[in-house]
Amino acid sequence: MKRLLFVFMIFGWITFLADAQEVRSPDENVRAVFEVKDSIPYYSIFYKDREIISSGRLGLDLITDEFEKQGIKIAADRYSLKDGFEISKIENSEFEEVWEPVWGENSEILNHYQEMEVDLYQPKANRHIIIRFRVFNEGVGFRYEFPQQENLNFFNIKEELTTFPLSGDHQAFWLPGDYNTEEYLTTSSLLSEVRSILEKGELHVGENYNLYDNLGILAVQAPLMMKTADGLYINIHEAALIDYSAIQLELDDENFILSTHLAPDPLGTKGFLQADCRSPWRTIMVSDDARDILASDMILNLNEPSAYEDVSWIKPVKYIGVWWEMFVKGSTWSYSDLENTRLGETDYTTVTPNTTHAANNENVRRYIDFAATHGIDQVLVEGWNIGWEDWIGHGKEEVFDFVTPYPDFDVNALQQYAMEKGVRIMMHHETSASATNYERRLDTAYQFMEDHHYTAVKTGYVGYPIPRGEWRSGQWMNNHYVRVIKKAAEHKISLNSHEASRPTGLSRTFPNWLAQESARGTEFEAMGGNSPAHTCILPFTRLVGGPMDYTPGIFQARFDYYHPDNSNRIHTTLAKQLALYVTMYSPLQMAADLPENYERFLDAFQFIKDVAVDWDQSWYLEAEPGEYITAARKAKGKEEWFIGAITDENPREATIDFHFLPAAREFTATIYEDGADADWDSNPMSYRIRTIKVTNKTVLKQKLAPGGGCAISVK
Amino acid sequence: MKRLLFVFMIFGWITFLADAQEVRSPDENVRAVFEVKDSIPYYSIFYKDREIISSGRLGLDLITDEFEKQGIKIAADRYSLKDGFEISKIENSEFEEVWEPVWGENSEILNHYQEMEVDLYQPKANRHIIIRFRVFNEGVGFRYEFPQQENLNFFNIKEELTTFPLSGDHQAFWLPGDYNTEEYLTTSSLLSEVRSILEKGELHVGENYNLYDNLGILAVQAPLMMKTADGLYINIHEAALIDYSAIQLELDDENFILSTHLAPDPLGTKGFLQADCRSPWRTIMVSDDARDILASDMILNLNEPSAYEDVSWIKPVKYIGVWWEMFVKGSTWSYSDLENTRLGETDYTTVTPNTTHAANNENVRRYIDFAATHGIDQVLVEGWNIGWEDWIGHGKEEVFDFVTPYPDFDVNALQQYAMEKGVRIMMHHETSASATNYERRLDTAYQFMEDHHYTAVKTGYVGYPIPRGEWRSGQWMNNHYVRVIKKAAEHKISLNSHEASRPTGLSRTFPNWLAQESARGTEFEAMGGNSPAHTCILPFTRLVGGPMDYTPGIFQARFDYYHPDNSNRIHTTLAKQLALYVTMYSPLQMAADLPENYERFLDAFQFIKDVAVDWDQSWYLEAEPGEYITAARKAKGKEEWFIGAITDENPREATIDFHFLPAAREFTATIYEDGADADWDSNPMSYRIRTIKVTNKTVLKQKLAPGGGCAISVK
Repeated sequence: MKRLLFVFMIFGWITFLADAQEVRSPDENVRAVFEVKDSIPYYSIFYKDREIISSGRLGLDLITDEFEKQGIKIAADRYSLKDGFEISKIENSEFEEVWEPVWGENSEILNHYQEMEVDLYQPKANRHIIIRFRVFNEGVGFRYEFPQQENLNFFNIKEELTTFPLSGDHQAFWLPGDYNTEEYLTTSSLLSEVRSILEKGELHVGENYNLYDNLGILAVQAPLMMKTADGLYINIHEAALIDYSAIQLELDDENFILSTHLAPDPLGTKGFLQADCRSPWRTIMVSDDARDILASDMILNLNEPSAYEDVSWIKPVKYIGVWWEMFVKGSTWSYSDLENTRLGETDYTTVTPNTTHAANNENVRRYIDFAATHGIDQVLVEGWNIGWEDWIGHGKEEVFDFVTPYPDFDVNALQQYAMEKGVRIMMHHETSASATNYERRLDTAYQFMEDHHYTAVKTGYVGYPIPRGEWRSGQWMNNHYVRVIKKAAEHKISLNSHEASRPTGLSRTFPNWLAQESARGTEFEAMGGNSPAHTCILPFTRLVGGPMDYTPGIFQARFDYYHPDNSNRIHTTLAKQLALYVTMYSPLQMAADLPENYERFLDAFQFIKDVAVDWDQSWYLEAEPGEYITAARKAKGKEEWFIGAITDENPREATIDFHFLPAAREFTATIYEDGADADWDSNPMSYRIRTIKVTNKTVLKQKLAPGGGCAISVK
Repeated sequence: MKRLLFVFMIFGWITFLADAQEVRSPDENVRAVFEVKDSIPYYSIFYKDREIISSGRLGLDLITDEFEKQGIKIAADRYSLKDGFEISKIENSEFEEVWEPVWGENSEILNHYQEMEVDLYQPKANRHIIIRFRVFNEGVGFRYEFPQQENLNFFNIKEELTTFPLSGDHQAFWLPGDYNTEEYLTTSSLLSEVRSILEKGELHVGENYNLYDNLGILAVQAPLMMKTADGLYINIHEAALIDYSAIQLELDDENFILSTHLAPDPLGTKGFLQADCRSPWRTIMVSDDARDILASDMILNLNEPSAYEDVSWIKPVKYIGVWWEMFVKGSTWSYSDLENTRLGETDYTTVTPNTTHAANNENVRRYIDFAATHGIDQVLVEGWNIGWEDWIGHGKEEVFDFVTPYPDFDVNALQQYAMEKGVRIMMHHETSASATNYERRLDTAYQFMEDHHYTAVKTGYVGYPIPRGEWRSGQWMNNHYVRVIKKAAEHKISLNSHEASRPTGLSRTFPNWLAQESARGTEFEAMGGNSPAHTCILPFTRLVGGPMDYTPGIFQARFDYYHPDNSNRIHTTLAKQLALYVTMYSPLQMAADLPENYERFLDAFQFIKDVAVDWDQSWYLEAEPGEYITAARKAKGKEEWFIGAITDENPREATIDFHFLPAAREFTATIYEDGADADWDSNPMSYRIRTIKVTNKTVLKQKLAPGGGCAISVK
C-alpha cells in the first residue's frame, strides 16, 4: 500500500478577467502564461525568462456538422470548442506531496507544483470547459477538462487544436509520425531537416510498415526531445493517456510550430468523449541541464495514484527467456511448418513437428535450471501455445486461444518444475494485434494463468489491429490496454506489453504495468540493428513515459557466431550491455542472451545477477541526448549501489562522482569496463573487471570505448 | 437428439470437359446448367423448361494488387478468382434423407436433391476451386468452395461476382439495399420502378438510418421475392451465412441483372477467408405455385445439421413481456432522467427515479402473475439493467454490463417468484450494437444467467456497430452472432436476436437460435406503422431464412386509447393478430399486448393460450405474396390443429380445406373471425367467435375483412 507521506495545498487565489494570467513553478524558473485573444485561448511557456512556447493555441475542433463517412452518421455537437471563449474564472493554487511508488527509480517522489485552473465560458453554447495548468520546476503540464453539464455530455473530436510554437529551428530527436508503431531508429536533425530526411525514405522500421504516409502529413512522434541553439533541453509528450488517442506532432517546418494530431478511428473520428472527462496532460519539460529531463518525475506526478488498494502482489522481475534463440539460432515459435491452422480444428498431435520449436519441455527445463542456478526470478517462454504457424500477415482474427499448449510443452509439469526450483514461468500472450480476440478470451486466459501459478505476462500486438481500421495508438486500443491491465490486476497478474501505444506514466495508476516495449528494442539488433547512440537517446524520449522492456544483456555480439551468413550484430560493447541495466531504468529486466553464452562469461554475468531492479534513489551524473548518460542508483532497502555509464559511437571519459555514497565509509566497487582495445564495431566483446575502493569523495575518470560503457556495483 | 431417419445417396457419375453440364431436380422440373465460356464460369436455371436465370456469372474478385486504405495494407493474393478457369472434373450425385428438426413447421423434413460438383482449375494460379450445385424440387442452391492447397490459403475478397440475370422486368417485393438494417416496409413494384421509388426517398425505416445510400449503388436486399409476368414465383436469398458478409443484390434495371454485393469492413475489404472454406449458398427458389415458396425447406436443408449433441434443453417458448407498454403507455426502459451515465460510476441508489420505469418489482410481478394464470412460459423484462439513460445515439461503447439491475428490480426475488409459479423471466441484453462490449462481457453475462435460472435471452443491436465502421450484416458481425449463439449453447441458453443480420437457416445448425427480428416487427405499429399487406409479404421474404419474433397479438388497435395525441395504431383487425400466430411461423411467440388488454378480451386471448409453438406438420392452403396466406398446422404430438388466414387491405374469402384432418372423424373448430363490420381502418377490434363441426371433407369459405384475418383452433 502506497503511503502518502506529505501533502501540502494552498487554496487558491482567484483572479477574474485579466488580459493575461500566469503561474510560476515553485522555483520560479518556469512560467506559464494564459490569455484569450479574439475569443481563442492561448498559452506561452517561459524558462528563466526565455520564451519556449510562444502563444500556443488551445482548443478542440468537434464534429459539428452532421458527419458521415462510409454511410455511417456520427452524433454531432452544435458548436465546436475552438473559439468563442471568455475567461470566467482563474484560480491558482499550490500543491506539494511526497508519495511512495510501488516500484521506481526513487522510493519517494516529490510532487510539487503551482496550479492555474482556467474556467472558460463559451456563451454561444452556454457551457464551460476548464484548462488546468500545473507548473513544476521541470516544466509544465496542461489539460482540457470537460465538466458534465446540460450543454456538454457526449461529443466527438474532429481534431485537437493545441499548438506548440517553438522559438526556433531546434535540434530534434524524432521518430516519423506513425499511428501504429514507434519501432524506428531515432533520427537526430534540425526540425527544418525532417521533411527532406523523410522524403529520402531512408528510415528503417524493421517491420513492414508504412513510413510516415499513414498520417499523410509531416509529423513526428511524442515524446519529442529537442535542444535549442542556446542550450535548452525541451521535451514534449503527454501524461495520463486514458480514453483518448495518442498525439502525433504535426510539424510546420517553416514556422517551427508543432500541433497535436490524434490517431483517428476507422471512420475518421478522433475521439468519442463523454463528460465528465478530460484530455491527457500535454507536457513540456524544459531545463538548461539535460540531466533534469531524465530525473524528472513530472509525468508520473501528472498521473493518478494507484487504482488498487492492495499492491503487495506487484513485484519487480528479473527474467530470462526462451526468446533470443528465435532471433539468432533459427529456433521457431511454431511447432510445425503448416501454412494454415485453425484454432480448435488443427490436431497438432498428428502434425509433423519442425524440430526447431524452442518452447519444448527439455529446452524450457534447461532455462529453468539456469534461472534457478543464478537466482533469476522468471523464465519467459514464447511459442508455448498453438497458433504460431500462420499468426501474422493474413488479417486472421482467431489466431491464439492463450490456453492450449503445443504437444511438446507440458504446462503443469514445467510450472511445477520451475516452482520447485524457486522460479516462475512467465506467460506470453501474442495477440497479433487481434484485440477483439484477446478481449473475448481474456477471462479464460487470465483464469488459466491464475490456475497455473503464472504471475506475469508479456503481451504482444504485432501488426494492424482488429477491430479493423483501428490503430495501436488510437482511442479504442488505448482503452483496450487499460481494460487488459485492470483485468490482469483482478488476477494479480503483472504486465509487460509489447507494441502497445507508448507509455504516458500510467504505471503510477496501474503499477502492475511493469513495462512496455513501444520502441525499438534489442530484438532489432537481429533485424538490421540499432545505432550505438540509440540507448543514449531512448531515456530522453521513450522512457520519459515509463519503463521499457529493452531486453539488454547480449554478450555474444556478432551473430556470425551462430551462422556464417548472419551479418547482424550488437551495436555496443559487452560492458555497455551491462551498463544498460542501470541507464535504462525498468522494474522488469531481462537477461536476454542465451544461457550458454552467459556460461561462457560468468564473471561478466555476475553484474546481471547482482544488479537491482528496484531502487531507493537515483542520480543522473552526466547526460547529453544522443551522446552519453551516466546514472547511479541505490538498491531498494540495501547498502548497494549500481552505476551505469554509456556513450554513443564516440569514445569518452565518464566522470563518476561517488558523492551519493554515505559519508566517511569505504566501499568496494567492482568495475565492468570496456577492454583497452574494445570497440562496438571491431572488438565488442573485450571487457575487463576490476575492483577499487571508493568513498563519497571518489571521482572516477572512467574510459568508455566507442559504442562502449561501464557498469559498476558497489557494496 | 436429432435422429437421422433415412439417408439415401448415389455416388456419382463423372463427366469431363463437356461444353455444358446440367443437373435436374428429383422431379425434373428444375434444371441447373453450368458452362465455362472464355474461361469464365456461368450457370443458368430453368423451371419447367422456362429459363429463370440466363447465364449468370460465377466467380470472385480478390484483393490482388497491394491494397491499402487509410494507410493500412491488406495481404493480397497474386491472382483473382474471376477468370482463367477450366473444368477439371464434374461429378453428379443424388442425396435423400429425412431428418427431424429440434423444432419446426414439420417434425420430419425431407432433404432430397441432385448435386453437381464442378471442380474448376485455374492454370495461371495452379489451384482449384469447387462450385457445388444442389437442385431441389423447389429450386437451386450453389456455393463456392475453397479447398486448402498450396496456392490457396488466406485470401481477401474485393467483391463476389455472382450474377442473377433475370428473364424480365419482374414484380418484386423489395427492401432498399442497406448494410445495417432490414427494418423497412417492403415495397412491391416492377424492378424497373425501384430506382424512381428510391429517388423519391419516400421509404420509411423508423430508425434514423440512411436510406439506400450507404451502399452508393442501386440495390435491394435478400431475400428478394419476385413474380414473373407469366406467373412464376422466384425467391433469391442465401443459406448458411457463416464467416462471410451478407449479400445485397445490386440491380441493373435496364437488363434486369442482379449481382451480389457484399457488406464491406471499415477498410473496404469484403471478406477475410482462410481455406478450407466456402461461401454461403446462393439460393434460387422457383415455382408456379406461391405456396411452394412458403412450404420449402430448401434453405434449412442447405444448412449443416445441429452442431450440438444434446439439444434436449432447447424448448419453444410462448412469452409475454414488459415491453409494449414502453411503446404505448409512456413507460421507460430507463430508471431515471439522467442524460449521462457511466457504468460502475453512476450510483443509481442516490438518483431520482423517473417513476415511469417499467421493469420494477411490482409491475414485473403483475406480468408474472398473468403468465402464471394463463400458462405463458416466460416473461421478457426489458429495461431491468442499468445503462438505458444514454444507451443510444452517442457512439458509447460501454453502455451495459448485463449483470447489474436497477435498484427497483430484484433479480433473485423476481426469478424466484416466477419459478414458484412455473414461469421464467426472459433475459434481455440490448447491446446497442456495441458488440465488442458484449463479447468481452459474455462469459460473465451468461454465467449470471445460468446462476439465476434464465434459459432464454433476447439480444438487441440497435445502432451502428462497434467495432466502428463494421456493419450489422458484415462478416465480422456475422461471426459475432455465431460466437454468441455458440457461447449461449455452452450455458444452455436460447436466443432471440433483434436487429441482427437476417437469417439464412442457421437455426438448423444452432437450434438454440429460436428466432430473430431482422425485419420490421410489430413495434413499428407504434412508430409510423406497418401496412396491412406487411405480414402477407414477410413469409415470402424475411421468413424464408428462419423464424421471426414478430410479436403479434395486439388487441388494443388504436393507441389514442392510451393518449389522445397518439395517432398510431395497428394496421390489422384483431382477428388477424390471432391468425399471425399461425401464418408467421416461429417457435418463439410473444403475446405482445398488455395483460390488462388481454383481460378485456379473454375470449379472444384463449386462442393465444391454446395455439401451439411447435408442430408435427404444416400445410399452406392458399398464398399469394402481398395479398393473402392461409396456413394450417398440427400441434406437435397432439390431436390439435390451428389455422390462420390473413389478407391485405382487401376483403377476401378464404377457402379452408380441412383435408389435413384424420379421415372419418369429426372435430370441433373454434373460429376467431372478423366481425361483420370489421375493417382494419374503421373497426379493427370487431371480432366474433363461433364453433363449427369439421371433418376432413369440410371446405370452409371464410370471410376476411379488409386488413383482416381468421384464426381457427381444432380439437
